[in-house]
Amino acid sequence: MTTNNHTKKIPVGILGATGMVGQKFIELLSNHPWFEIVALAASEKSQGKQYGEAMKWMMDVPLSPHLANMAVQACLPTLPCQIVFSGLDGEVAGEIEEQFAEAGYVVISNARHHRMVSDVPLLIPEVNSEHLELVKWQRFSKGMIVTNPNCSVVGLATALKPLVNQWGIDQVNVVTMQAISGAGYPGVPSYDILDNVIPFISGEEEKIETEPLKILGTLQEKRIEPYAMRISAQCNRVAVMNGHLECVSVKLRNPATSAEIIRAWQTFSGEPQAFHLPTSPSSPILYLFDERHPQPKLHRHLNQGMSVSIGRLRKCPVLDWKFTLLSHNTIRGAAGCAILNAELLIRKGYIKHDIKTWEDDKPDFVSQQEVDEQSFV
Amino acid sequence: MTTNNHTKKIPVGILGATGMVGQKFIELLSNHPWFEIVALAASEKSQGKQYGEAMKWMMDVPLSPHLANMAVQACLPTLPCQIVFSGLDGEVAGEIEEQFAEAGYVVISNARHHRMVSDVPLLIPEVNSEHLELVKWQRFSKGMIVTNPNCSVVGLATALKPLVNQWGIDQVNVVTMQAISGAGYPGVPSYDILDNVIPFISGEEEKIETEPLKILGTLQEKRIEPYAMRISAQCNRVAVMNGHLECVSVKLRNPATSAEIIRAWQTFSGEPQAFHLPTSPSSPILYLFDERHPQPKLHRHLNQGMSVSIGRLRKCPVLDWKFTLLSHNTIRGAAGCAILNAELLIRKGYIKHDIKTWEDDKPDFVSQQEVDEQSFV
Amino acid sequence: MTTNNHTKKIPVGILGATGMVGQKFIELLSNHPWFEIVALAASEKSQGKQYGEAMKWMMDVPLSPHLANMAVQACLPTLPCQIVFSGLDGEVAGEIEEQFAEAGYVVISNARHHRMVSDVPLLIPEVNSEHLELVKWQRFSKGMIVTNPNCSVVGLATALKPLVNQWGIDQVNVVTMQAISGAGYPGVPSYDILDNVIPFISGEEEKIETEPLKILGTLQEKRIEPYAMRISAQCNRVAVMNGHLECVSVKLRNPATSAEIIRAWQTFSGEPQAFHLPTSPSSPILYLFDERHPQPKLHRHLNQGMSVSIGRLRKCPVLDWKFTLLSHNTIRGAAGCAILNAELLIRKGYIKHDIKTWEDDKPDFVSQQEVDEQSFV
Amino acid sequence: MTTNNHTKKIPVGILGATGMVGQKFIELLSNHPWFEIVALAASEKSQGKQYGEAMKWMMDVPLSPHLANMAVQACLPTLPCQIVFSGLDGEVAGEIEEQFAEAGYVVISNARHHRMVSDVPLLIPEVNSEHLELVKWQRFSKGMIVTNPNCSVVGLATALKPLVNQWGIDQVNVVTMQAISGAGYPGVPSYDILDNVIPFISGEEEKIETEPLKILGTLQEKRIEPYAMRISAQCNRVAVMNGHLECVSVKLRNPATSAEIIRAWQTFSGEPQAFHLPTSPSSPILYLFDERHPQPKLHRHLNQGMSVSIGRLRKCPVLDWKFTLLSHNTIRGAAGCAILNAELLIRKGYIKHDIKTWEDDKPDFVSQQEVDEQSFV
Repeated sequence: MTTNNHTKKIPVGILGATGMVGQKFIELLSNHPWFEIVALAASEKSQGKQYGEAMKWMMDVPLSPHLANMAVQACLPTLPCQIVFSGLDGEVAGEIEEQFAEAGYVVISNARHHRMVSDVPLLIPEVNSEHLELVKWQRFSKGMIVTNPNCSVVGLATALKPLVNQWGIDQVNVVTMQAISGAGYPGVPSYDILDNVIPFISGEEEKIETEPLKILGTLQEKRIEPYAMRISAQCNRVAVMNGHLECVSVKLRNPATSAEIIRAWQTFSGEPQAFHLPTSPSSPILYLFDERHPQPKLHRHLNQGMSVSIGRLRKCPVLDWKFTLLSHNTIRGAAGCAILNAELLIRKGYIKHDIKTWEDDKPDFVSQQEVDEQSFV
Repeated sequence: MTTNNHTKKIPVGILGATGMVGQKFIELLSNHPWFEIVALAASEKSQGKQYGEAMKWMMDVPLSPHLANMAVQACLPTLPCQIVFSGLDGEVAGEIEEQFAEAGYVVISNARHHRMVSDVPLLIPEVNSEHLELVKWQRFSKGMIVTNPNCSVVGLATALKPLVNQWGIDQVNVVTMQAISGAGYPGVPSYDILDNVIPFISGEEEKIETEPLKILGTLQEKRIEPYAMRISAQCNRVAVMNGHLECVSVKLRNPATSAEIIRAWQTFSGEPQAFHLPTSPSSPILYLFDERHPQPKLHRHLNQGMSVSIGRLRKCPVLDWKFTLLSHNTIRGAAGCAILNAELLIRKGYIKHDIKTWEDDKPDFVSQQEVDEQSFV
Repeated sequence: MTTNNHTKKIPVGILGATGMVGQKFIELLSNHPWFEIVALAASEKSQGKQYGEAMKWMMDVPLSPHLANMAVQACLPTLPCQIVFSGLDGEVAGEIEEQFAEAGYVVISNARHHRMVSDVPLLIPEVNSEHLELVKWQRFSKGMIVTNPNCSVVGLATALKPLVNQWGIDQVNVVTMQAISGAGYPGVPSYDILDNVIPFISGEEEKIETEPLKILGTLQEKRIEPYAMRISAQCNRVAVMNGHLECVSVKLRNPATSAEIIRAWQTFSGEPQAFHLPTSPSSPILYLFDERHPQPKLHRHLNQGMSVSIGRLRKCPVLDWKFTLLSHNTIRGAAGCAILNAELLIRKGYIKHDIKTWEDDKPDFVSQQEVDEQSFV
Repeated sequence: MTTNNHTKKIPVGILGATGMVGQKFIELLSNHPWFEIVALAASEKSQGKQYGEAMKWMMDVPLSPHLANMAVQACLPTLPCQIVFSGLDGEVAGEIEEQFAEAGYVVISNARHHRMVSDVPLLIPEVNSEHLELVKWQRFSKGMIVTNPNCSVVGLATALKPLVNQWGIDQVNVVTMQAISGAGYPGVPSYDILDNVIPFISGEEEKIETEPLKILGTLQEKRIEPYAMRISAQCNRVAVMNGHLECVSVKLRNPATSAEIIRAWQTFSGEPQAFHLPTSPSSPILYLFDERHPQPKLHRHLNQGMSVSIGRLRKCPVLDWKFTLLSHNTIRGAAGCAILNAELLIRKGYIKHDIKTWEDDKPDFVSQQEVDEQSFV
């Protein structure tokens, strides 16, 4: 709300600023300790307008007057910053993001276009930060493209990672119940979803069945060797605003006990935690012991939407174990994950800048220890 | 609406008449060609009241003045009829239903209590009508108890039966998204389900993992040999009024093609169809080819809620095949199935009566052929 | 479902057949005793396609294969019928409907364009059937245009009419809670309406404040003298599929008692009832005595959606009386009202035809007497 | 989250701590700069249990381990504090609250029981802080009872106050669309409200038609002279989690322009603002110029739920002006208003304490000036 003195922050731009993901970037970056939004870019029909006039603001937190008055620019690599966050639609993202990368920009993309390209990191900072190294082999001289996974994949791959580490996984079956915010705006007509479930989301099952294999894969000479397991996904749209719920069953390569699995989740941690990155939750995974949890409405905002909540771990008569997970689809599953990617890039020295990022205070997030002590979860 | 001349119909009573299932029995029986409701029985707090005063009517079709004025009786075996439909709660159903059976009544029960008892048929008329024979060995001299499965099981077991017949099944994974009407009334608080999914329904997963094994089992000397397969279930409550949606994957014992499976479903038929029972749909299973189908709101009322709708059959990377099914939980999954059980008992001569049931006209239901010709499904 | 012998029915066409109102026309006319749909017309992008391919069918009742296979035609006055029902959008309805009327067609329109034109009847058959005479002075040699009111106005004007007749009305205050189906398809984005109310519907308040004055006005020499009263409307969109609920308060010109007002509503009847028109409810208004009624989900389908339900009549501390009314917005408030208009035109001899319409059987609707006897309302 | 050093805070207790309002008190007080919760009291069935075990926590913010472990006490005037907040049910509140007041406690009550008692202030701090003086004449030697209004009344009376001040009001018509959280828990069954509106809330209309007259009345010798105007209310329950929306029309005593009314709202301010009380919003009323606003989902959380949002001011054809208002029913309309009452009591010296409250920092709330500059409202 107050007029910040932004002189020491890193300037960033938003591509696709008017869409649902673009707005979420703006909301999450509005008080970011490292980044300052200096450019908003969108498609032709918004260009030249004031941002506040160019879109319908959908976020909970009011848009600042400063950004509302900012003129929307074209998605051309002339933006006054080095880093751009891309919330572009998959159809147009490919070409535009490459233009930016070729022009020397660091493109932090939420779009699906480059995710499975061999030299592009598909990153969840807690899960596979070592994949960042791929950018060294990208064909761009100075720029680079880093992507985050599909909104349903982030929660799933995060939940699977500690199991992969400790026991290995052979098979995964997942059925999703996905929030309407994942379909963008106007997205799902109310006539279709009120008093209903839609058992189909175009292209979603394919992403869930492939992206985790790359994410959980091994960095080898200039490429990722995919993790060898099979995933089967069935995707449904439900009348929930935010938060994707997933019923998962897994077949492990080695035997585990329930207590061991829960402990693996609870103790799971990665570079964002080690570096105390600003957007990093204290625990990437929270295990909830109440058999009715996790629930989208109750738990999507835990740790400001950056933790994956898991519950109901129990034996599966068909595979080995089954459980339910929840992650906030537009925060952990999209804009929040992308911002964490950018923070990691900076902290690991991939992007040059003048500020001492690692001295920033850590936000006050919920740790697994606190969850254990709380009665509500 | 009109005052019927009921003289030729078979008198029936409803146990647990004030609850959600009891009301559904009344709605579905209100214009039944064979049955006439002559007694409404419920727990002590309703007894003596006029039925219209004793409960809050929740059905879409108005309650007839005749039944609204009927006095609610105690659940004692003194009702003026031979057949009683039981919509009693599981907690009290056991004792009451046995009292009635011992007193010579035919108890058609929707309650869970007797479902897994070895000499009680757990019946879906299209699936295992031969199990009816079990009643011969029931300990009751003249009465009997016949049950229908849990509301989520009816759709599942019906969908699995043609596959069991033709290829055999080894493993089933099912994730349900269940309607709020399944929780009775007042049931799920709106505060819990609006903008939410609840990933837990008490006792439901256990029923889904066991009941189908009995239903698909083989009648042997005085008992059912359970079908040998493993089922894993994960149950969720969603903000849908009626209609349980289930994401299913199966491992078959023998190879099948997609076309063969669909054909097995489309041509599936049982005694209710052969006998043209009044409540029988022309096709127990309708296959919908639109990849967005089935949906609760669009398809739960097909064939007046008595058909199971299936769609999205495709290869499963983990098991063999996956698909989505839908059945109306309070009709096909509860009261409608029970009424079909009663019709079958009569038609097969298990209950003596004076009317020529098989000359009744068949209601105008949707056949698979018509579905194939329709654009909406 | 069965192949009807249509030879004796009156052929009709649907303009704007692919939209929500057009689909409702098709649903309601699919088993109509007098009319047979012989032509489906829509905008350019649908022309030439099979109807089943040209739209997404949204109705509860399956589309018949016959209509699904019918080729969509242009909205040009070459359709093989004399009567057309118009579900066209307001923007294009004006010109097209006039072309049809000039070419000799009887246009039964639900569009807003001609409603307030001085020589066009704005008709609710029970309320102002005498206004039909206006068509004599229309400029079209043989054709004519007849309109029905806005979906919120039908229920309101029907409820007000008996009060106007008996006591006169000076002032009306109305706040509506309108269903999403009134916004067409895709209409209201789910992101906007889930867990929300939108307190604005473009153009709606103006219609509610003016259309009833014409409907309740007096036919004079070639025109309608508007009824002299003031109406204030505030319109809201709520998360309801079908059924507009309205909180109304009125100031009467002469004193009335509660019992007198209820009796005026209960005994209200018009030409549709006198003529036993096929789509006519036995009672245009049903009064419900339970203080929690009417409710959209419980009562919108009473009399197949053709009755207006009223409840909660009580003294108003500001005006004189207040009450709540409900009417089904796409049936009584749109397509059903239009069809009743067409039936009235035929029965009163405005359209020549060869069939004896008045000998048809009356459908079995709920009368106020039956409502009084039922406990559920 | 952190273990606070509470030594300097004022100890308070919560009566009815397990209910919805009690939980909201706990949530809002959990980081309060002046108050520290030292006692949780509830009905017999919760007594002795740990608070975390005694109820189902419904709030968004996790319950702190400290409070979860606190033992629930009886509602007896032996609690170790001077101030108690009462979220008791209306049925039991009367007797218990009087016991506490007689024992010398300051009872800040949200219950309806004492609201209309002549010597009890019915307080909205911005609207009628001068009524606090009533407590001087209360029969309790040392204790006192102060109440806040019904959840629908707080928003209405706040919106009316500037109009009363400047022009006077003769008549008010209000139709509410109220959130389900107002019905407590379990409250409204989902079966009743999904795809529905319930046009009745027991006792609500009476409160709305009477409480504002006292609130807007004039303090005279030991009593309040009610404001002389007539209010008519119609109340509806809608499928919204939080936030009561109200369509209001008013007849003023003197002419006003639209600009003047908006300015009166925007500049409205009271003692909470003058004193910078911790829970006070910078502006009690925010005027939103977008004709689609206010909406529950978008605006209920403005100023942390403590501002009333108003929009759509326009001429009313029946009375003079009409508009739509929104206030958060469990914050501004209940627990938040009560806490503000307590803060005012302390700041004005009605309660003795040792801390310098008025030097506390002001939270960062949205002012009308900021709203004017923002595009989203």
